[in-house]
Amino acid sequence: MGHSDLSRWLELACRLADAAGDVARRYFRRSFAVETKSDLSPVTVADREAEAAMREILAREAPDHRVIGEEYGRDGGAEGPVWVLDPIDGTKMFVTGRPMFGTLVGLLLDGRPVLSVIDQPITGDRWIGCRGQGAFFNGRRMRARRRGRLAGAVGSTTSPEMFRTARDRASWAALRERAAFWVWGGDCIGYALMASGFSDLVLEAGLEVYDCLPLVPVLEEAGACITDWQGRALGLDSDGHVLAACDPDLAAEALAQIAAASGEVTTPT
Amino acid sequence: MGHSDLSRWLELACRLADAAGDVARRYFRRSFAVETKSDLSPVTVADREAEAAMREILAREAPDHRVIGEEYGRDGGAEGPVWVLDPIDGTKMFVTGRPMFGTLVGLLLDGRPVLSVIDQPITGDRWIGCRGQGAFFNGRRMRARRRGRLAGAVGSTTSPEMFRTARDRASWAALRERAAFWVWGGDCIGYALMASGFSDLVLEAGLEVYDCLPLVPVLEEAGACITDWQGRALGLDSDGHVLAACDPDLAAEALAQIAAASGEVTTPT
Repeated sequence: MGHSDLSRWLELACRLADAAGDVARRYFRRSFAVETKSDLSPVTVADREAEAAMREILAREAPDHRVIGEEYGRDGGAEGPVWVLDPIDGTKMFVTGRPMFGTLVGLLLDGRPVLSVIDQPITGDRWIGCRGQGAFFNGRRMRARRRGRLAGAVGSTTSPEMFRTARDRASWAALRERAAFWVWGGDCIGYALMASGFSDLVLEAGLEVYDCLPLVPVLEEAGACITDWQGRALGLDSDGHVLAACDPDLAAEALAQIAAASGEVTTPT
Repeated sequence: MGHSDLSRWLELACRLADAAGDVARRYFRRSFAVETKSDLSPVTVADREAEAAMREILAREAPDHRVIGEEYGRDGGAEGPVWVLDPIDGTKMFVTGRPMFGTLVGLLLDGRPVLSVIDQPITGDRWIGCRGQGAFFNGRRMRARRRGRLAGAVGSTTSPEMFRTARDRASWAALRERAAFWVWGGDCIGYALMASGFSDLVLEAGLEVYDCLPLVPVLEEAGACITDWQGRALGLDSDGHVLAACDPDLAAEALAQIAAASGEVTTPT
């Protein structure tokens, strides 16, 4: 697939995000029964309607492409174009009325993310990344900032409860105590704002394929790094641990700290 | 001071928030040297400019009222009208480009908060509370929702690092493990969204007078509760521990859990 193909699919990715955003705006800050936990709760209705709207467009515009969405499992193969969709990443933010959730749309070729859109439908912020064509924030080319080292860095994580094992908590603590400060809550928006120069580091665990693969083109095209906690590229078989850093030197130092901290934990629980 | 006086001061409070918002919007997501930690860092410039703009208006419109702002200490007396200002509550959110900070403007009479404005200048969300006149979210009357009990509640806290002592952490854990889920990051916006019906509970520690007193009229006029962790009204001598709950039954259960949990910690550190 050449640049002109990618541009065509990027335009389609933006239309998918538009369609999901229409649904999210319709449900945002409406009173719905969050105590209802069944599959038919209005939150799930918003999520499903948004994903259904995107799938409807894909079925028409790219009927031979495969789709991985939050409502569907992965299928076996990794060849050919695969769309990865998360209609509302940050459901807890969405249901508590905070404009800190996002729609994620990514396209994989041969299992590797090549273009993506991160969209916040309430503030109207949109981040785009396309392999070889750069990254854009609200239509303007963007670059992650350079920090170089952990001292003085600003980090973020969606929730401290993401770190479920002693090993994960030790790794997070090692980064936290060396950074300047940490901010909380954000889901995909935390990564997107890092890529556009407003922070330095994101450390998370427990992510799904549809949470993390669409982040990759936006971050990498902005000059930032995103890998698992061992420094490996994210893919369909990743374990849900994600480290993002604004530059390669910071990423290397953070990975070394994670390795040292997790090596010190003898009984991971 | 009667209703007509309060209405006059409420109109002034809105103008103060407008002025602070103009400054915050001018600096939001602009590249500034966050590595500069001196008093002249652009963050502090935004904060100071916003507070200066509010003080200039107060000096003209209410020259005999006193002012407590983030840049100024408390003075001794508590009689007469006192304005409590926090130009940018949630500085970490502000410098990382997240529209989850707020301008706080409160008016105290005889040491008790009687009216306040919580303003988010990027999204344009504004919450207002005025004693005896109700609470309003973007111009519409609002009420906190009713939850009644901790089971199934949705809580929020700005950062887990707010809980610095073993006793504080035990209290938070007691609420957390009984709630449905918790969201992170928010500062004043977390309280404001709770008051307008999007969550049930906020638990925090380490707040200053200017962080918490302007929350009181918005929350109480919406039917929510806000006290310290012993259930006492917040005032100029509060210790910075704040519990907010959407209804009195939930507040009572949360206070009982806090008391039980902190009693179990024998060596607070």
